[in-house]
Amino acid sequence: MKIIIDAMGGDHAPLEIVKGALAGQKRWDVEIVLTGDKKAVWEAVKSCGVETLPRGVEIVGTSETVEMCDDPSTVFRRKKDTSMGVGLTMLRDGKGDAFISAGSTGALLTGATLLVKRVRGIRRAAMAPVIPTTTGKAVLIDCGANAECTPEYLVQFAYLGSFYAKRTLGIEKPRVGLLNIGAEDSKGTALQKETLGWLQKAGAEGHLHFIGNIEAKEAIKGGCDVIVTDGFTGNVMLKSMEGTGSYAGSALKAMFGKNLLTKLAAGLVMPGLKAFKAELDPNKVGGTAFIGISKPVIKAHGSSNAEAIENAVLQAKQFALSGIIDDIEKNIDLMKVEKE
Amino acid sequence: MKIIIDAMGGDHAPLEIVKGALAGQKRWDVEIVLTGDKKAVWEAVKSCGVETLPRGVEIVGTSETVEMCDDPSTVFRRKKDTSMGVGLTMLRDGKGDAFISAGSTGALLTGATLLVKRVRGIRRAAMAPVIPTTTGKAVLIDCGANAECTPEYLVQFAYLGSFYAKRTLGIEKPRVGLLNIGAEDSKGTALQKETLGWLQKAGAEGHLHFIGNIEAKEAIKGGCDVIVTDGFTGNVMLKSMEGTGSYAGSALKAMFGKNLLTKLAAGLVMPGLKAFKAELDPNKVGGTAFIGISKPVIKAHGSSNAEAIENAVLQAKQFALSGIIDDIEKNIDLMKVEKE
Repeated sequence: MKIIIDAMGGDHAPLEIVKGALAGQKRWDVEIVLTGDKKAVWEAVKSCGVETLPRGVEIVGTSETVEMCDDPSTVFRRKKDTSMGVGLTMLRDGKGDAFISAGSTGALLTGATLLVKRVRGIRRAAMAPVIPTTTGKAVLIDCGANAECTPEYLVQFAYLGSFYAKRTLGIEKPRVGLLNIGAEDSKGTALQKETLGWLQKAGAEGHLHFIGNIEAKEAIKGGCDVIVTDGFTGNVMLKSMEGTGSYAGSALKAMFGKNLLTKLAAGLVMPGLKAFKAELDPNKVGGTAFIGISKPVIKAHGSSNAEAIENAVLQAKQFALSGIIDDIEKNIDLMKVEKE
Repeated sequence: MKIIIDAMGGDHAPLEIVKGALAGQKRWDVEIVLTGDKKAVWEAVKSCGVETLPRGVEIVGTSETVEMCDDPSTVFRRKKDTSMGVGLTMLRDGKGDAFISAGSTGALLTGATLLVKRVRGIRRAAMAPVIPTTTGKAVLIDCGANAECTPEYLVQFAYLGSFYAKRTLGIEKPRVGLLNIGAEDSKGTALQKETLGWLQKAGAEGHLHFIGNIEAKEAIKGGCDVIVTDGFTGNVMLKSMEGTGSYAGSALKAMFGKNLLTKLAAGLVMPGLKAFKAELDPNKVGGTAFIGISKPVIKAHGSSNAEAIENAVLQAKQFALSGIIDDIEKNIDLMKVEKE
């Protein structure tokens, strides 16, 4: 298993990326390829206290970097030798089993689509983070790759998310819900209303375990395993959860910091506090998979530290071994929505 | 000041509604009118230990109730004598200064629009809850009244929200943000992109303190005072915040309930815990105003208890005294978006 990693993408590149990659290589027993500026990557390797490259670690030198300000739709034509573009091309050519980047989301999605390509028949790749719920975890699909969606995209996301939940969360028949502002069939915009009909049909035919419309609050309570939505709404939901989590964190901090007694209280519940914080910490998850691309591409958070990259390496390995891309290819005929 | 209250709307009607109304009448020094089934309302009054109606409390008997399953668009034609419809008609006719109902949101919005009417020139009324942020409070507009919106609706919501924040939160120049999935001008769907241009123009002309696109996470951190969005997205944001708050609550409960020491810790921070819970408790707020209707209409939460109704009475009084409807009427010319 060989994981290709964009050493130049992200706020803390290349040092944290390289540090996490080296740790992940050892811990998860994979080979890694680092793409990026050879000198900078080597310096980062040395900063980790490594003088000669360990077996299973390779550096592929590139001369350019995709910047956050680059236009995703043209950057790979303008810059031919970026750490991201070269890594994606290696993935396409079978020189690795998965690719990880903490660089620009838009560029990575465009690059994955142009260079690695989507699974044949898939209209749009989606970002599908796994979010914590009161009773476990759920896949939120899409969460930012596609701001504007058609019912067909959403129907495909339902299948993609269902395969993903099955393969990575180990849920035999994932409960699929359509994110909406009420449970009744009449709720939502034209997009939700039309999608609902298609998903009900897929449910009735036994292709999906579709449970109907679901409100954000119920979804976070654990009401379903796959939350299907357009990328705009999904992103707002995810960011609202992050914002509220951080709000709760600030409130707790103020509460525990008040006086000596409350500080004592904090000490008494410290293990619980740490576990709560960890559940909401994006660095523990690693990254977000682009589902629908024909090979595994993982987007790590822009602010990823070494721990995040180390965890993303595991995530990439698991994704590559999961068989989800096979699932998608085999079931592509189910995912067609005929135009009326 | 006379507040009309739908005694039959909500999960806990009429008892909790009547209880809250009587408490609010005394506490906030207003007159109240209860609309509803005379016998049922009287029984509820007696259950509160009151044998004769106090001065300032009146009951207007009605024979029907708007049910949750009633179609909002036809219910007021089919049922002529509902507690909601009669209350709204009294408000229109000047027999009260504000109306509160915990009944069906859709029916209340339709009834307010049909019977009380919108301010002339306003395209759609919006629901605008005040949400807690890390640094204070913000108005979220719209949050469920209008699932599908045009740029013109959103531009109007920006003004409505701005007046509301000024008048009820006391912010002289409320910072208005357009909810989006990134700060850059190119982010979002066609709706956000077109709305952004209009709001930037309004900002440049000095009519609004517009700060541009804002992500949900930044908004919850206190990045703006008015969060402008369509009702679908706003509802998902609000419900995501509620869901995450309840998730954090469960996590805290588990954390503090673990053993004797953690229970001791809970005791030490109890005042802080209670204050945190209160900030997220919808019953403390009372309700959500429909902004854009020509007279004050307040939607109380369906699950409102007496405390919620008592607080809604204060909110209705403040709304009626605030001058916000005057603000809207005087500035209606600014809110026109010419079709291109």
